[in-house]
Amino acid sequence: MDDSALAGFIPLQNDISAPKDTKLRDAYHEELDSLSHKLVEMTRLARSAMARATTALLDADLRLAEEVISGDEHINKIDTEIEETVFDLMARQQPVAGDLRTLITSLRMSGDLERMGDLAVHIAKTARRRHPESAVPPELQSTVLEMGQVAERMIAKAGSVIASQDVAMGLELDADDDQMDKLHKRLFTLLLAPTWKHGVEPAVDITLAGRYFERFADHAVHVAENVVYLVTGQRPEEINQ
Amino acid sequence: MDDSALAGFIPLQNDISAPKDTKLRDAYHEELDSLSHKLVEMTRLARSAMARATTALLDADLRLAEEVISGDEHINKIDTEIEETVFDLMARQQPVAGDLRTLITSLRMSGDLERMGDLAVHIAKTARRRHPESAVPPELQSTVLEMGQVAERMIAKAGSVIASQDVAMGLELDADDDQMDKLHKRLFTLLLAPTWKHGVEPAVDITLAGRYFERFADHAVHVAENVVYLVTGQRPEEINQ
Repeated sequence: MDDSALAGFIPLQNDISAPKDTKLRDAYHEELDSLSHKLVEMTRLARSAMARATTALLDADLRLAEEVISGDEHINKIDTEIEETVFDLMARQQPVAGDLRTLITSLRMSGDLERMGDLAVHIAKTARRRHPESAVPPELQSTVLEMGQVAERMIAKAGSVIASQDVAMGLELDADDDQMDKLHKRLFTLLLAPTWKHGVEPAVDITLAGRYFERFADHAVHVAENVVYLVTGQRPEEINQ
Repeated sequence: MDDSALAGFIPLQNDISAPKDTKLRDAYHEELDSLSHKLVEMTRLARSAMARATTALLDADLRLAEEVISGDEHINKIDTEIEETVFDLMARQQPVAGDLRTLITSLRMSGDLERMGDLAVHIAKTARRRHPESAVPPELQSTVLEMGQVAERMIAKAGSVIASQDVAMGLELDADDDQMDKLHKRLFTLLLAPTWKHGVEPAVDITLAGRYFERFADHAVHVAENVVYLVTGQRPEEINQ
């Protein structure tokens, strides 16, 4: 997209977006900036939810699990606010190409982050369902711990990428995701080993939890990809070619 | 959103979207219509992929599984085309509120449908991994068959809802989704029953396949919700209140 394609539009009679009305234009740009701050706040909440959910799962900590489950409402609320702001700005401001791209990628990132909160809730619910036992047998604890740490690192990095618009850091998330995939494979190797002696129920729980960690990581990659696209106009696969 | 909020904008110097240039305005509306046709085509492809994937899973049919896996490229291609059309129209046409809503919901539905194709591929890959055996033990075959049928019905209905903009039919998908959730629970009951004698590996496969069916249904609900929002300006939960 190219801003010059839109240069022919000259707003008339519309005080809200008339370029000479500096005060109101500033309000517009403040609203655009607020989207970025809200997205960073969502990454912080999703990171915290994932950290607590992982600990709840490993330690069978019911209190932490409940915190994650009830805290998800906060992430959902910000998602709704972002959606409302985006639709409102689009309707009132006829944004030009660069701002449009910001608005659409904000919607997408917000959707990914909202989903990441849900995935942390799913992990917390697994912990709650198995309480007072831990859903994670001893020989899997280190792998699940590492999956939680990689997930937490990825969402923290995604937050920094949104705040800094650092493309190089955004591209790093692919390597983190490869690490998550390796841990996910290791989990299945351990689950399906002839030495597995915990039966079907823990296997089902671990299978689902593993899937939640892996999807969390995928969404973190999407968030970073959206920032890369926003800054460069290119998808990461185009840059890496 | 309200079109009148945008009434102050009068395009100047921009031939492409000048209202008096009927021929080019028609090209614009043809492009908007083409989005709807492409979305319906995606539902058709995702429905076919899900039907084949379910049969491949139940019958351990490697050929059908491979068809689903290689066919996903086609769904992804349409998703990319829709994204390009939406961004192009936004940049060139400064669409007003109603059209903006069409463009943004099209992007979202396309994202859901692309993901539904991925989920059918995941089911097909489960079938392929276990071939020449079936991943589904005899006592689970009827439940898995029903999950596939509900999934297929939901995506077919979502396609009809896009084509007809029928809000009442769009709201029906919630009840279908409840049915999917019941089948999903029955799957776990059977998996975790003391009579389960198939060990951990089939339990892991069925756990993941069950999750894929359930997510497929969730995305079908999202697609229908977007149509309801497009037509009424309200989310289904607001209508049902």
